[in-house]
Amino acid sequence: MTTYLDYQAAKPVDERVLKAMLPYFTEDFGNPSSLHLYGFNASNTLEEARKKIADFINAPSPDNIIFTSGATESNNLAIIGGALRRKKQGNHIIISEIEHISIHNIGKYLERQGFKVSKVGVDRFGRINLNKLERLINDQTILISVSTASNEIGTLQPVKEIAEIAQKNKIWFHSDAVASESSIPIDVQGIPYDLLTLSSNDIYGPRGVGALYLKKGIRVNPILIGGGQERGMRSGSENMPGIIGFAKAAEIMKAEIKDESERLKVLRDKLIEGVLKIPKSYLNGHPEERTPHNTNFRFDYIEGESLLLDLKDENVQVASGSACSSKTLEPSHTLISCGLLHEEAHGSLLLTLGRFSEEKDIERIIEVLPGVINRLRLLSPLTPSGFLEQIKKEEK
Amino acid sequence: MTTYLDYQAAKPVDERVLKAMLPYFTEDFGNPSSLHLYGFNASNTLEEARKKIADFINAPSPDNIIFTSGATESNNLAIIGGALRRKKQGNHIIISEIEHISIHNIGKYLERQGFKVSKVGVDRFGRINLNKLERLINDQTILISVSTASNEIGTLQPVKEIAEIAQKNKIWFHSDAVASESSIPIDVQGIPYDLLTLSSNDIYGPRGVGALYLKKGIRVNPILIGGGQERGMRSGSENMPGIIGFAKAAEIMKAEIKDESERLKVLRDKLIEGVLKIPKSYLNGHPEERTPHNTNFRFDYIEGESLLLDLKDENVQVASGSACSSKTLEPSHTLISCGLLHEEAHGSLLLTLGRFSEEKDIERIIEVLPGVINRLRLLSPLTPSGFLEQIKKEEK
Repeated sequence: MTTYLDYQAAKPVDERVLKAMLPYFTEDFGNPSSLHLYGFNASNTLEEARKKIADFINAPSPDNIIFTSGATESNNLAIIGGALRRKKQGNHIIISEIEHISIHNIGKYLERQGFKVSKVGVDRFGRINLNKLERLINDQTILISVSTASNEIGTLQPVKEIAEIAQKNKIWFHSDAVASESSIPIDVQGIPYDLLTLSSNDIYGPRGVGALYLKKGIRVNPILIGGGQERGMRSGSENMPGIIGFAKAAEIMKAEIKDESERLKVLRDKLIEGVLKIPKSYLNGHPEERTPHNTNFRFDYIEGESLLLDLKDENVQVASGSACSSKTLEPSHTLISCGLLHEEAHGSLLLTLGRFSEEKDIERIIEVLPGVINRLRLLSPLTPSGFLEQIKKEEK
Repeated sequence: MTTYLDYQAAKPVDERVLKAMLPYFTEDFGNPSSLHLYGFNASNTLEEARKKIADFINAPSPDNIIFTSGATESNNLAIIGGALRRKKQGNHIIISEIEHISIHNIGKYLERQGFKVSKVGVDRFGRINLNKLERLINDQTILISVSTASNEIGTLQPVKEIAEIAQKNKIWFHSDAVASESSIPIDVQGIPYDLLTLSSNDIYGPRGVGALYLKKGIRVNPILIGGGQERGMRSGSENMPGIIGFAKAAEIMKAEIKDESERLKVLRDKLIEGVLKIPKSYLNGHPEERTPHNTNFRFDYIEGESLLLDLKDENVQVASGSACSSKTLEPSHTLISCGLLHEEAHGSLLLTLGRFSEEKDIERIIEVLPGVINRLRLLSPLTPSGFLEQIKKEEK
């Protein structure tokens, strides 16, 4: 029995989603651009799928949705495509210090293209400081990109306030919603996003497909040039089974997200309560303003990587820091931005829940973790001798 | 019963491919970047898949392969990424007049970025003129991009000769192989391609995945910026089920392509023979040097679009011109480049065969087509009166 607590890095495709996709691989395989029955069917199906994605985020129209190959491409299209589109208006972009590494890399790329990129800092819980954000804005600012939530520490950003600040200053506001879309409902009419990145896998759809929401009237420069699909903003023959799976996943998520969010909160809080019983353990991120599926801990005297590998031996699959950069073994830039020391950031453990997480998964990790941590602390040169004695006493 | 003869526009996924993909949607869904068992498994699987793609084209190493979201992205990465990579060496690129519209659009994009793009012409069969190609080369030429075969008329290009000319002049040679990879074996060691575009769907794998082959030592600038996957040349979490399906498709294709190619040639030649019995019908493209799955015809006095729609009513799914631009109703730029008049190019009909084409599909189209063409010619204002009399006589 494997306990999987790394939903932020990868999610299984929901069986209902897979079932919806299957006919489109082998039977209804038409190209939406073809002028025959298979093509017409595909074209209709594509537009129905677009409608479902629009409905999922309460977008006024399917025209607000562009399909892409995933969140990375949506972020490229929004930030690079948006910056290039607006370069006559200005050359300044603001992101947050705790954005996903891929967005930091987009920022570096834009700097090489002559743009200026500022990073707004966060408080110790990982929340953006709105005053600092306002102070960073100047007459060259054309785009602000801040994720709805942190993929590492789960902290929810004040996106409504950011959107309003952006709107007031005629700046486009882009947000990557992948870290929240599985547990926080999205309403693009309630919050005036200009651009919003969605991923399919993050809502239990297939990998290799995503979308970009664009508010009415907003266009970005294309990143992939070609046959002019997706209103000229994203070329390439449409990945129909992927798009259909994504749409089905969105439909299911829309129907279930409220209940699921409540269920996850109960599991999450139980997990937090259980883990924090371990001496010298701490919760990273915000105590309340966090996604219902995220927990992130740190433990004095031990490194997250060793913890992760020891848990692997116990058949518990977890992550340390961001899944997408965890192989680098660098301490999390997010935790550093929250004011943690390098050694503290190295001790972090990311446990993320999902649709198939159950009470027994929480019980299992709470049962296994204290022993693993004690063993590692007994081996760690960092553990103070007094604390070592205490652990040895407990072990008996 | 539907007769499907539009394999160039869209192919069904082979059942064997789908079967290989299925576990990776719901069970083995790990992210190759994760440092736990699911992650390690995914990472191994990813490298095995890369090896299969390398084997398919006889590449020396899996390191030669970068996974992308499909042929459009591979072409962008090769041509735009390659041009930007080499811009210190020069600013001149050569493509052919009959490249797919998406490559023409990439050319226009590069022109806006300050590059110069020349188009090499073709003979009446659609073959590139090598002398003209050599004359276009200057000391600024950094890249030549010519597809292995035309997606419309199936004409095979002298890619070996082009590659040698490029090599001699220290120019990178990129080729889009999507129109030939299902029926012509590829050997990147036999033909010194620098960059080669592959699509998964064109070999009966899933949509939304493709690859770029890069000769050893060649790097291109990334188009999608992010987490640095695929050796920094293509960011984004890997689409594992897609990649696994693509790899399985490549494995099957490698094993079957020789026999399949022979089988398709027999069907193709039977189709050509049957269709050319229709009075005033012509084969577009090269009589011999063409892909085994392609036929492209034209018929005096009628338009391809009406033909296509009438055939749809007969449950025969075909295309006119390029599937990816057929909605524009412009005459095919490929046929125009071959020297056809606008009205001749409008009369073209693209019939492409594939793995599931059978003798009965050929018989069906040969049975249906003459009647449809007669009916259209009777209605056409272009049909000369003498010829009309002849049709009417035959109809009786």
